[in-house]
Amino acid sequence: MEEGSGVLQNSRSDKRLIGGEGTHEEFEGNSSFLRVVETLLRLFPIVLSVTALVIMLKNSEENEHGSVSYTDLSAFRYLVHANGICAGYSLLSVVFVALPRLSSSMSINWTFFLLDQVLTYLILAAGAASMEVLYLAEKGNAATAWSSACSVFGLFCHKLTASIAITFVAVICYVFLSLISSYKLFTKYDAPDISNISKGVHISAFHG
Amino acid sequence: MEEGSGVLQNSRSDKRLIGGEGTHEEFEGNSSFLRVVETLLRLFPIVLSVTALVIMLKNSEENEHGSVSYTDLSAFRYLVHANGICAGYSLLSVVFVALPRLSSSMSINWTFFLLDQVLTYLILAAGAASMEVLYLAEKGNAATAWSSACSVFGLFCHKLTASIAITFVAVICYVFLSLISSYKLFTKYDAPDISNISKGVHISAFHG
Repeated sequence: MEEGSGVLQNSRSDKRLIGGEGTHEEFEGNSSFLRVVETLLRLFPIVLSVTALVIMLKNSEENEHGSVSYTDLSAFRYLVHANGICAGYSLLSVVFVALPRLSSSMSINWTFFLLDQVLTYLILAAGAASMEVLYLAEKGNAATAWSSACSVFGLFCHKLTASIAITFVAVICYVFLSLISSYKLFTKYDAPDISNISKGVHISAFHG
Repeated sequence: MEEGSGVLQNSRSDKRLIGGEGTHEEFEGNSSFLRVVETLLRLFPIVLSVTALVIMLKNSEENEHGSVSYTDLSAFRYLVHANGICAGYSLLSVVFVALPRLSSSMSINWTFFLLDQVLTYLILAAGAASMEVLYLAEKGNAATAWSSACSVFGLFCHKLTASIAITFVAVICYVFLSLISSYKLFTKYDAPDISNISKGVHISAFHG
């Protein structure tokens, strides 16, 4: 993959030398529109993950039946960690995307492409595991004799639902970010417009 | 995205007209190696998902404490469905990948790219939810007064572990398939070698 990437990077630098102004402006236009969408999609998960994290961190309930906290269930501890990592990564990545100079390097594009995929898997797995525990806490299970915890700890379950729902909105943002980062990666490699290449060659022939 | 795809597709057809034989052979070589890897990565999940599915479908235990089956827990029903869909999709997609004529179209590449992502998310979520339920069944939970079901239904839990572990191997295959299908998508768009273009233009000038 590294070798392929090198070949393509050379082709891209050749394109800069040969490509006409029209193609360049069009590319810049698409690129800046994509940058705005991407910046927003990276800003949203910061707010979403921090909100989901704070709701979960404050989520504990105590009554005559006993007490329950998010720390009692491994899935919710994982959700808190995943949201923390997601918020941190989103903050870091938005800085790179907002600064065009930093985000134009191919290694940065590759890094974002791979990390966006990893983050999507990480937060999706945390959301799926937490949702399953919430479902069990709501409904209980007869076969394993697990009682419905939500009938006893209502407020705890309400906050869980809110935190998990917000996490899934962040997951949706990351699914689109994964698509955008892979799209960005291959549009960097797009073939030059042939009419412009011919023009470039004609001009060099004229000067020669 | 559709517009961008169209522009790139035109560039690719231009490349075919202009690109030299060397570049073409190199591209064909990479492409056939990638096809072998991709075909294997699509064949493995058929075997893995069917195995995980069969283990889960046959997973039920009855003793003096009661009876338990995979149908009693929603996460395991979801796992069975996800593995079924995964096996079916893998079988269908391997046919397309094995036949170069069918897999060369850009719409097929886009479809595989998107469906590979969806399948990865689907089976990862099923695996994560099932693993969390298995963890609860193994350890139990004091706060929600959920007893350890595995101490009573040992064989059931052993088969669960096997089925979930196999599912995660299929998830790993799909993570790599997602990377390959996105890599394939953008290498289809790679810029032609400039020296070959110059040659092409020189030849046309000579004939003109």
